[in-house]
Amino acid sequence: MLSAYLSLSLLTLMCQLAVSLGGKVLVFPQDGSHWVNMKVLIEELHTRGHSVTVVRPVDSWYIQEVSPYYTSITIDVAAGSDEGFFRSFVSRQLQIQRHGSSFWTRLALDMEIMEKFSQVHYKTCEMVAHMLEDAGLMLALQDAGYDLLLTDPASGGGVILAHRLKLPLVFNVRWTVHGEGHFAIAPSPLSYVPVPIAKFTDRMTYAQRIRNFLMYGFRMFLYRRTVGPSYSALVTRYFGPEVDYFQLFQAADIWLMRVDFVFEFPRPTMPNVVYMGGFQCKPAKPLPQDLEDFVQSSGEHGVIIMSLGTLVGQLPSDIADEIAAVFAELPQRVIWRYTGDRPSTLGNNTLLVKWLPQNDLLGHPNVKVFVSHGGTNGIMEAIYHGVPMVGIPLVFDQADNLSRMKAKGAATVVDIGSLDRDLFLQALQAVLHEPSYRENMQKLSRLHRDQPIKPLERALFWIEFVMRHRGAAHLRTESYKMPWYSYHSLDVMMFLLAVITTFVTVFVLGVMFICTRICCKHKSKQD
Amino acid sequence: MLSAYLSLSLLTLMCQLAVSLGGKVLVFPQDGSHWVNMKVLIEELHTRGHSVTVVRPVDSWYIQEVSPYYTSITIDVAAGSDEGFFRSFVSRQLQIQRHGSSFWTRLALDMEIMEKFSQVHYKTCEMVAHMLEDAGLMLALQDAGYDLLLTDPASGGGVILAHRLKLPLVFNVRWTVHGEGHFAIAPSPLSYVPVPIAKFTDRMTYAQRIRNFLMYGFRMFLYRRTVGPSYSALVTRYFGPEVDYFQLFQAADIWLMRVDFVFEFPRPTMPNVVYMGGFQCKPAKPLPQDLEDFVQSSGEHGVIIMSLGTLVGQLPSDIADEIAAVFAELPQRVIWRYTGDRPSTLGNNTLLVKWLPQNDLLGHPNVKVFVSHGGTNGIMEAIYHGVPMVGIPLVFDQADNLSRMKAKGAATVVDIGSLDRDLFLQALQAVLHEPSYRENMQKLSRLHRDQPIKPLERALFWIEFVMRHRGAAHLRTESYKMPWYSYHSLDVMMFLLAVITTFVTVFVLGVMFICTRICCKHKSKQD
Repeated sequence: MLSAYLSLSLLTLMCQLAVSLGGKVLVFPQDGSHWVNMKVLIEELHTRGHSVTVVRPVDSWYIQEVSPYYTSITIDVAAGSDEGFFRSFVSRQLQIQRHGSSFWTRLALDMEIMEKFSQVHYKTCEMVAHMLEDAGLMLALQDAGYDLLLTDPASGGGVILAHRLKLPLVFNVRWTVHGEGHFAIAPSPLSYVPVPIAKFTDRMTYAQRIRNFLMYGFRMFLYRRTVGPSYSALVTRYFGPEVDYFQLFQAADIWLMRVDFVFEFPRPTMPNVVYMGGFQCKPAKPLPQDLEDFVQSSGEHGVIIMSLGTLVGQLPSDIADEIAAVFAELPQRVIWRYTGDRPSTLGNNTLLVKWLPQNDLLGHPNVKVFVSHGGTNGIMEAIYHGVPMVGIPLVFDQADNLSRMKAKGAATVVDIGSLDRDLFLQALQAVLHEPSYRENMQKLSRLHRDQPIKPLERALFWIEFVMRHRGAAHLRTESYKMPWYSYHSLDVMMFLLAVITTFVTVFVLGVMFICTRICCKHKSKQD
Repeated sequence: MLSAYLSLSLLTLMCQLAVSLGGKVLVFPQDGSHWVNMKVLIEELHTRGHSVTVVRPVDSWYIQEVSPYYTSITIDVAAGSDEGFFRSFVSRQLQIQRHGSSFWTRLALDMEIMEKFSQVHYKTCEMVAHMLEDAGLMLALQDAGYDLLLTDPASGGGVILAHRLKLPLVFNVRWTVHGEGHFAIAPSPLSYVPVPIAKFTDRMTYAQRIRNFLMYGFRMFLYRRTVGPSYSALVTRYFGPEVDYFQLFQAADIWLMRVDFVFEFPRPTMPNVVYMGGFQCKPAKPLPQDLEDFVQSSGEHGVIIMSLGTLVGQLPSDIADEIAAVFAELPQRVIWRYTGDRPSTLGNNTLLVKWLPQNDLLGHPNVKVFVSHGGTNGIMEAIYHGVPMVGIPLVFDQADNLSRMKAKGAATVVDIGSLDRDLFLQALQAVLHEPSYRENMQKLSRLHRDQPIKPLERALFWIEFVMRHRGAAHLRTESYKMPWYSYHSLDVMMFLLAVITTFVTVFVLGVMFICTRICCKHKSKQD
């Protein structure tokens, strides 16, 4: 009897442990650099005892089939987000910025990248359709008993899959198919919320506000013409015309936003948006001995590190020569991640490396300046370690990201189009010698680090919250289900206007009627 | 030399310790029941080693002059927020609800309470003016080196004082002089954000949305006519016409909002709004032995507790008799906080007490139902402990608060106007015997308790954050400095409309001109 009771207690305890330790998470990630962020969450989920399954296309660019952190489901559809195209795009973009080009060449390149993105979304839809058609796979996914679906809504595939599997939905988000994450979920007054890529701050001039307004309109138009229809068609095909794709999207339980307000300008938000900007940052580990020796040899002058991200390992030789020549003039040591040919002007103080431990270097006390292309990951690491920046933006959101750091007085920015020895030297000297840049960056670092709970822990808490409660409905408005004219109270205003108009009309007509009567009487008396 | 170095180190360490342990907080509280909330923060600040100074009027209702938790500064102005008036108001309001009255009587009472509130604000302004005129006091306050000013913006006095002393400003807020806290700081789409006191949810019918819109307009009108001018005049008098009172108000660094989304409907918010709803809740302590014995004697039927808040200790005898008669019929035991005469129908199962340890009783496993007037503090305690409610709303925001609990399926509500034996019994039986009420309340409790950091800790973290960084500017928009037409982009829309109109006009005129020319030529040829 006692032993039976004990086994029952043990069973209960084990069940509780299984629930508390072992959630099951299905991940529908975005390929490319976005995967770097998703991997951080997946590794942490794994560390906490959850089991993770990742859906990947057969030709995945970044997402490996075999990993100690997850099991994968490979879908036999080529998604076509290939490295080659993006590398070539960046290099052509660079060429245009550097040497100028006709309006038509630029437009053609813009069209090409948009076409590529459309195609990637189209392929994602094909991949999801392939999954939905596969009855065996669907049954297996349903039987697997996942607790939630985690996705990067830069593609809409995860949203549709979650709806099909009736799973709570968590976003790991900064960009969505509908623009920057906040624009899809929170009120975004265009008078002080700059549209990304605009390079504006939260204090815009009248002219900037007009441009901000127009750019937002243009982006919405583009979305409705290019990306939207693919997903809408898929949703209609599998769930019927009464299900609206954008509503499924807005119904996500938790939006883990890769944003922190030391980087983003303050703006309206929603209760189910959880900020985890800087979640990938961690204290620096010791450097390999040879690198440490190089860094130490810089003495009081310190070290500059330079990296233009994974996509841009090399530069056209004229730019590389200009940069190398400036570095050669400086008393600092320089560590430059560069995979191209050795620039002819390279000085003895500059070390070219194929790869650098960026986080560990940024956390080294001798590092004075970070020369960067302005990807968000690099910027957040620089903020975390308090290292001021010289930005050389190349493509996508990089110029916009760097404009924020410039507005906060923590970076100078050099346009790659006009970059020459003088401009680059000037930008570097300012950050090296004007104390305000370092002070401002260190202030941002202090603000960013002073949080009641670390960003990664916060993200994991809310993922596990969704597991425990099968969603987070109490934090999510359902206002997105209203038609737009009701959401903005236009129907209410029309009604009130109609009432007022009726009253005024009746009043005016009444007065006119009475006046006419009085006049008539007056006239008939006169007659 | 060494000793000098040691003393310097010691001095530095002591300074750091002083900063980290001993902040100085100036508090400008709101008198009455609001003080109960402020006291929780003050006691916690004291426990953490901060020193607190509280500003109080000479005739303060709730705020004691001497306390172990703070030193006080008594201002020799009578603020006139007297208990007598509010007790009489509640009792007359109850009389009206119970026995009906003419429209004019109700309007007169509404006018009276509004006049009273206006008068309290006017007196607050007088108190602040008295302080600003007192050069000695101002100098002493400046020299005291406060780190921040903490205030309940139900009155605007603290805002003005903070501006004069150039102190960072933290709000402990639910109500402001401009309505519910969020309405003064965050976008509040009236299509799904119900105006408090409306008793609507976040899913309104068309008719409700129209009423919501009108009620908001009416409240704004009232504010601009009654409360606003007192504060604006004060600000103009002491800081000149270029300083806008409402802008000072919106510039508060942190809004500690006494709201939790298990109670409030999800709605837009801002980065500097910190939710601390339920910050006053804590685990139950053991009951006094006699009360514990009474509770235990209830057996499996359990206990009902009833309290209508501090202001309403007694009820008209007819209502009390009805309530007591219902209690007498039940198998449960009842503990009723009641200071009036013993109702004639009182049963043996009902214990009348002058005061009850509400939190400890709500946390007792035998307590089945909480009969309450629906003050927010009581509701948050009931949520924390997962005890379903029967609401009897009396005045102010209570009906609105309870309508939320009803919408969430965790309470029934009885209108005091129509309350009789049958209705009250029905409401009680439902909560006692339909499991959904308890289940829903326990679900709210689980959601509320499942937070990465406790509400009180979160509040204290952000108060100390403001001390450490002298504000929280990076979380606060300055969009409130824009004129309203710019904030809503009306000027941008007007410009774009003008451009479009011009284009269309030029185009139409052009076409007309060409047509005319063609016609003329045609005609001249014919001629």
